[in-house]
Amino acid sequence: MNPIYFDNAATTPMRDEVVNAIIDVMKNSFGNPSSSHSFGRSSKTLIEKSRKTIASYLNVSASEIIFTSGGTEADNLVLKSAVKDLKVKHIITSKIEHHAVLHTVEELQKDYHVSVSYVNLDSDGCIDFLHLETLLKSEEKTLVSLMHINNEIGNILDLKRVANLCKANNTLFHSDAVQSVGHYKLDLQEIPIDFLVAAAHKFHGPKGVGFAFIRKNSALKPLVIGGEQERGLRAGTESVHNIVGLEIALKTAYDNLDKEKLYVKELKEYFLNKIKKEIPLVAFNGYSSDFKKSTYTLVNVCLPISQKKAAMLLFQLDLKGIACSRGSACQSGSSKKSHVLTEILSNEDLEKPSIRFSFSIFNTKEEVDYVIGVLKEFVD
Amino acid sequence: MNPIYFDNAATTPMRDEVVNAIIDVMKNSFGNPSSSHSFGRSSKTLIEKSRKTIASYLNVSASEIIFTSGGTEADNLVLKSAVKDLKVKHIITSKIEHHAVLHTVEELQKDYHVSVSYVNLDSDGCIDFLHLETLLKSEEKTLVSLMHINNEIGNILDLKRVANLCKANNTLFHSDAVQSVGHYKLDLQEIPIDFLVAAAHKFHGPKGVGFAFIRKNSALKPLVIGGEQERGLRAGTESVHNIVGLEIALKTAYDNLDKEKLYVKELKEYFLNKIKKEIPLVAFNGYSSDFKKSTYTLVNVCLPISQKKAAMLLFQLDLKGIACSRGSACQSGSSKKSHVLTEILSNEDLEKPSIRFSFSIFNTKEEVDYVIGVLKEFVD
Repeated sequence: MNPIYFDNAATTPMRDEVVNAIIDVMKNSFGNPSSSHSFGRSSKTLIEKSRKTIASYLNVSASEIIFTSGGTEADNLVLKSAVKDLKVKHIITSKIEHHAVLHTVEELQKDYHVSVSYVNLDSDGCIDFLHLETLLKSEEKTLVSLMHINNEIGNILDLKRVANLCKANNTLFHSDAVQSVGHYKLDLQEIPIDFLVAAAHKFHGPKGVGFAFIRKNSALKPLVIGGEQERGLRAGTESVHNIVGLEIALKTAYDNLDKEKLYVKELKEYFLNKIKKEIPLVAFNGYSSDFKKSTYTLVNVCLPISQKKAAMLLFQLDLKGIACSRGSACQSGSSKKSHVLTEILSNEDLEKPSIRFSFSIFNTKEEVDYVIGVLKEFVD
Repeated sequence: MNPIYFDNAATTPMRDEVVNAIIDVMKNSFGNPSSSHSFGRSSKTLIEKSRKTIASYLNVSASEIIFTSGGTEADNLVLKSAVKDLKVKHIITSKIEHHAVLHTVEELQKDYHVSVSYVNLDSDGCIDFLHLETLLKSEEKTLVSLMHINNEIGNILDLKRVANLCKANNTLFHSDAVQSVGHYKLDLQEIPIDFLVAAAHKFHGPKGVGFAFIRKNSALKPLVIGGEQERGLRAGTESVHNIVGLEIALKTAYDNLDKEKLYVKELKEYFLNKIKKEIPLVAFNGYSSDFKKSTYTLVNVCLPISQKKAAMLLFQLDLKGIACSRGSACQSGSSKKSHVLTEILSNEDLEKPSIRFSFSIFNTKEEVDYVIGVLKEFVD
């Protein structure tokens, strides 16, 4: 069996269309988009076309898309400028956000003395809307930062409901949508959100590029200062080939979404049914076994495996050529427990091994069969 | 005649070796370097090899190289953290730095009330070392930020002399070396500098990647916060293909430096001799006609052309397929005068058109002949 890649929430392989588009730019369009001569104008045309394409899929204006080096930089740009320049004094977030949000908020709390409220979660990691409504009554200028799809347990937030609540309370709303852009269609005219960020490499695009949607007239200021690129919101020569790769990845993802979503959804369904049959005592973290409340791209399982065997589990899976993850890739090198599971699991369940399997169009049912067969060997 | 690209200080075409290395990574190594499985480890190995290679050419430790999305981000990282985390209270810089430094320093002055001193310059843009020494007597914790090679006029700073002065005065020293890395060999064991930044696209590498050299134990903290990538100094999934492209660009540049430097230097010499002969009243801005004091890669000429004709000059050059620049690419879209030339030229000379021509190994003497022929038509 070839190595099996079930870690698509960490990153994805690039599509051929994306690779070919990047090669074309690298070979034929090297001008600096800020140069006024023909070489520069060609590059400028490419990135403005990319911006327009991306904007059209989200139903926003091209001028509301700002390219960054990825989702993390985009989160930093929005959160830091909201505090520094928009004078936000209170941030509402949750304890199961990505570290790009959580650690940035912690720094803002320390440096700018913003108050931070963490919205209550139930044992599946779903936010308590009543608590959120209470928190929104804050008198201070407030920003809500809640991710659209949780990268570890796959829970989907009702973005529109939160956005409407925020709007009704005159509060800014930012969402890290790194796990949803390219996997779910978003119409940002229907969702009154202020800021939303995405990263190309989560939907078969290149690493090192992403974007922030920044609603018109938001008065954000740049995190990276220098030249006047990106309408003054992000200095530095644009990574033209990566931006075009991002465009093609998004376009291809959305143009094929119905078909591909069905394929990946069936794969997850197959995985769920098979693992329930083969390992009846398996449990699912968050809402990851519920198709309505979680993304079709991942499942997070808590396995009935003794601590003794659990210690070797990921190592053995790796030896057998199976790539999956204990949590977000950003932490997988460390021995720390997932901050997401720590928030929602009982101490007893936290002692059992939990693993995230995340799928893409490049996976197959045969791979699912093999992986579950290997997992079964570990169960007592 | 094919279009002529004489704007290599703005950005450069990628070498074939670089393009091929990037293609190889895009097709074969897609893992997230933070993932602990085999896909992740392969990517991690690639970026650590790149780091080691780059470090070896600069004679520093691999752990002192931090990858960023480019030179601008790296400048921002160093300058902002120096003030915020190292508690620098005084910055010494010059009025002819790149905007990535100048605008960042201006923001730090506004937000953190650091005092800023601009070192005096002579009419060629050379810094006044006596003035620098006086400024270094400051009682406050001080950082000096002076670029190695000026991007508009090509002046070379004596990096070692400034570094030694800073060291003797217990002052931090940062240099934007975006125009010199890949073009000049630097031994950072010989030069006691604290921070130095570079960008791949200035030496035939990809756009969207650069690095900061950060001397060991400097206690800098990240600008972009989130995961633990880059030893905690720069969060966000690494742009693996771009980093490998940076490595190959740097390696190829330095392995062929003697030969290629000679080629480009002869081209500049040919340009200088030819333009002096054809347009005797030409003047050279900064030290750009002096091979000892300026880079072999560019020349900045002040042309004896009437204001009436000057207005159409860049436009006409572009029509004839000649790409060059009035100043840095970051400003070339605007009608503002170059902040560098404004500092050093007389009002009379500022009224005349100044143009930067910057060369690479992909240029030829035939191109020089053609360009100077076109320029001559404009001279009265």
